[in-house]
Amino acid sequence: MEKVKAYIESNKDRFLEELFGLIRIPSISSLSDHKADMVRAAEYWRDSILKAGADKAEVMPTDGNPVVYGEKIINPALPTVLVYGHYDVMPVDPIELWDSPPFEPEVRDGKIWARGADDDKGQAFMHAKAFETLVKTDNLPCNVKFMIEGEEEIGSPNLGKWCEQYKDMLKADVILVSDTSLIGPDTPSITTGLRGLSYWQVEVTGPNRDLHSGLFGGAVANPINTLAEMVASMVDEDNRITIPGFYDDVLEATAEERAMLNKAPFSEQAYKDAIDVKELRGEKGYTTIEHTGIRPTFDLCGIWGGYTGEGAKTVLPSKAYAKISCRLVPDQQHEKIGELFAQHFKNIAPESVKVKVEYLHGGQAYVCPIDLPAYKAAEKAYFQTYGKQPIPMRSGGSIPIISTFEEILGLKSVLMGFGLESDAIHSPNENYPLENFYKGIETISWFYHYFAADSK
Amino acid sequence: MEKVKAYIESNKDRFLEELFGLIRIPSISSLSDHKADMVRAAEYWRDSILKAGADKAEVMPTDGNPVVYGEKIINPALPTVLVYGHYDVMPVDPIELWDSPPFEPEVRDGKIWARGADDDKGQAFMHAKAFETLVKTDNLPCNVKFMIEGEEEIGSPNLGKWCEQYKDMLKADVILVSDTSLIGPDTPSITTGLRGLSYWQVEVTGPNRDLHSGLFGGAVANPINTLAEMVASMVDEDNRITIPGFYDDVLEATAEERAMLNKAPFSEQAYKDAIDVKELRGEKGYTTIEHTGIRPTFDLCGIWGGYTGEGAKTVLPSKAYAKISCRLVPDQQHEKIGELFAQHFKNIAPESVKVKVEYLHGGQAYVCPIDLPAYKAAEKAYFQTYGKQPIPMRSGGSIPIISTFEEILGLKSVLMGFGLESDAIHSPNENYPLENFYKGIETISWFYHYFAADSK
Repeated sequence: MEKVKAYIESNKDRFLEELFGLIRIPSISSLSDHKADMVRAAEYWRDSILKAGADKAEVMPTDGNPVVYGEKIINPALPTVLVYGHYDVMPVDPIELWDSPPFEPEVRDGKIWARGADDDKGQAFMHAKAFETLVKTDNLPCNVKFMIEGEEEIGSPNLGKWCEQYKDMLKADVILVSDTSLIGPDTPSITTGLRGLSYWQVEVTGPNRDLHSGLFGGAVANPINTLAEMVASMVDEDNRITIPGFYDDVLEATAEERAMLNKAPFSEQAYKDAIDVKELRGEKGYTTIEHTGIRPTFDLCGIWGGYTGEGAKTVLPSKAYAKISCRLVPDQQHEKIGELFAQHFKNIAPESVKVKVEYLHGGQAYVCPIDLPAYKAAEKAYFQTYGKQPIPMRSGGSIPIISTFEEILGLKSVLMGFGLESDAIHSPNENYPLENFYKGIETISWFYHYFAADSK
Repeated sequence: MEKVKAYIESNKDRFLEELFGLIRIPSISSLSDHKADMVRAAEYWRDSILKAGADKAEVMPTDGNPVVYGEKIINPALPTVLVYGHYDVMPVDPIELWDSPPFEPEVRDGKIWARGADDDKGQAFMHAKAFETLVKTDNLPCNVKFMIEGEEEIGSPNLGKWCEQYKDMLKADVILVSDTSLIGPDTPSITTGLRGLSYWQVEVTGPNRDLHSGLFGGAVANPINTLAEMVASMVDEDNRITIPGFYDDVLEATAEERAMLNKAPFSEQAYKDAIDVKELRGEKGYTTIEHTGIRPTFDLCGIWGGYTGEGAKTVLPSKAYAKISCRLVPDQQHEKIGELFAQHFKNIAPESVKVKVEYLHGGQAYVCPIDLPAYKAAEKAYFQTYGKQPIPMRSGGSIPIISTFEEILGLKSVLMGFGLESDAIHSPNENYPLENFYKGIETISWFYHYFAADSK
């Protein structure tokens, strides 16, 4: 393994130039006139994996953009790592806010500036280069498979089906993903959880038409008042959700996990200042990091009804609507929560209104146990390169495909991200520090080393 | 008084033709290209009052449309009745739904069909003709003043100032108004109350920008959730309003008043069927008629915030808004209620949000005591012509100018309306039954008789 660092050092300019080649392909998955770019980006990935030393690699069709699959099986008896990444990127609007063209990558101030520099071309490409490094230095200690998709930014609509279809081919011991962030450039962390999601639209109907609020007000249920009461009743004064059964499947984090989560450097004052609020508000008995990391939520994403124009118009409206979402945590099942909410919403609706509930969207939460051998290997790898124990972090966001992998392939994912909060992913002037790119390649190489060693 | 009925009978066609002359002037106050029509309608009224026997009548300017003032003082020692009405009408759109042109009045099925047939040309003109009848038959028992405005349909923006200016000239014992309805053609009623109004717009701000509901949800107060909780807390489970001091000035109706109100024919099932609701909902301890007639309300007229487009977008929004109105009852003061709400809304706002309250609009409630001599005279007058005791009715709506009269002139108004629910005021095919027109003239004549007799 002493050759690893030297190999990366002596090939660093070529690695960067190869990444730039990938970045220059404007593979924006949400815009249909980039179809040909999607194929070009997939082919670029196929060729990169092959050149890095794979036994085989191919561009495989789906109902949408193709998936790149490649593998190197050195010994079927050894463990296998399945690398997941995506070659598609977000659109670049508003283009006028970019300081340099988004698909002409350049290095300034020690950072790569381009769309996809971090998300996920820069991060995923580290895996191609770590793989090459291990192969070329004769250090590859296990089998490797690559699964690089082209639809992550539009919700991976075809990857689940593709995984079902190629379940056998995808057999592995763990999935390795770099598509998340570190707490800071010198504070390594591993994302150990992603929240799930349930999303509904509700409609409350009072009278069959808008009524004169003078002639009818006081005698007829107002659907906006009623909707407000109904949703208000769903969170109690401790900020706990009152839907019966809602917490039944919540996996309580262990004291050890909570202690580790709360080790993350966090300034409540800076957090409040950044969003300009005097006080935070979360479930009683948990910290802010826990509120977003390991606890479920109940948020109104939108509400509307009645007169919303200028000035005063008196009306007792017929209808009121809301869009409501819950972030979920392991082991909550989004379908079950979807149903519990719908049932409760109907149960608490007074007889004076009619209600409708539509389930728009959902996804399972994901958690990576910190005693998983692959997690332990990742921990050692970060310690090796950063000199510090990485902090396990629960992200409040959702990457539904990660829990889909677990459902279909029965595999846990280890989220070894190297991005930074300041990388401006999805925004103008996306960037990725060169240091993170090279340190990522090195850390990933060490992951294979420890993972194979510990599996013996 | 025996000559009254005969006089009306022998002049009925002329009365109708004179009313038609007024109706033919398209005096729509909300449309500025009808300015000249407003003056023509005012002049028509001036001439009608003079011809009916007034000592004087004139068209008096305001900052908006003119007010017609006329009077006949037979003896300053006798009581004085001030008649209020309005010569302006609502627009006629959608014109294609009219069965006959709105400003070409015609009689079909015993009804006058035209814009203003009821509201308020037909009803106000009964007063000109009742006055004429009393003068010509030598039955006028008291002094009469007329105040006919041209801006009622746009909220009487200049009449209050005009009343202030001519306070002395307007001295009287009571104001008589025909601009309301009967329960039914054979069920006489007198509107004894109008509700007041307070109207606010509120804004609740959470974070200073829309946030990712995954990354921040659970730790940061959601302004929609918070707004829903705040407004929900303002009505308790008995549907009573929880704003401190809200009921302090509510004048409880007497048992006698409540008993009389509840004598009005009312089918709860028909009421529910008409608006398609299974259950009504109102303050505990009061009937539906009382809920709209004598109790204050708390209604959300509009609400909005966050994502309201198609499908699912997860967002923890920065802001939520609502338009809120309370209908008020005597002796609630709208300015005081406006302040009590604003104070309470700010008091209950958690530290995690910022709130703004804007008072958009307000007006006082009005009540006519049923032991008022003028009310008693009206009661006798209806009994005389309908053979039935009229039912005192509280209307849930608001006519703010009526309480303004009380404030400025110190005078109560008696609301002797003769319209019907089916008259379609403000709508296409407005109409007014001929019977109501003639019976109204007769009933008003009897009102003068009893009012003067009882004042002796």
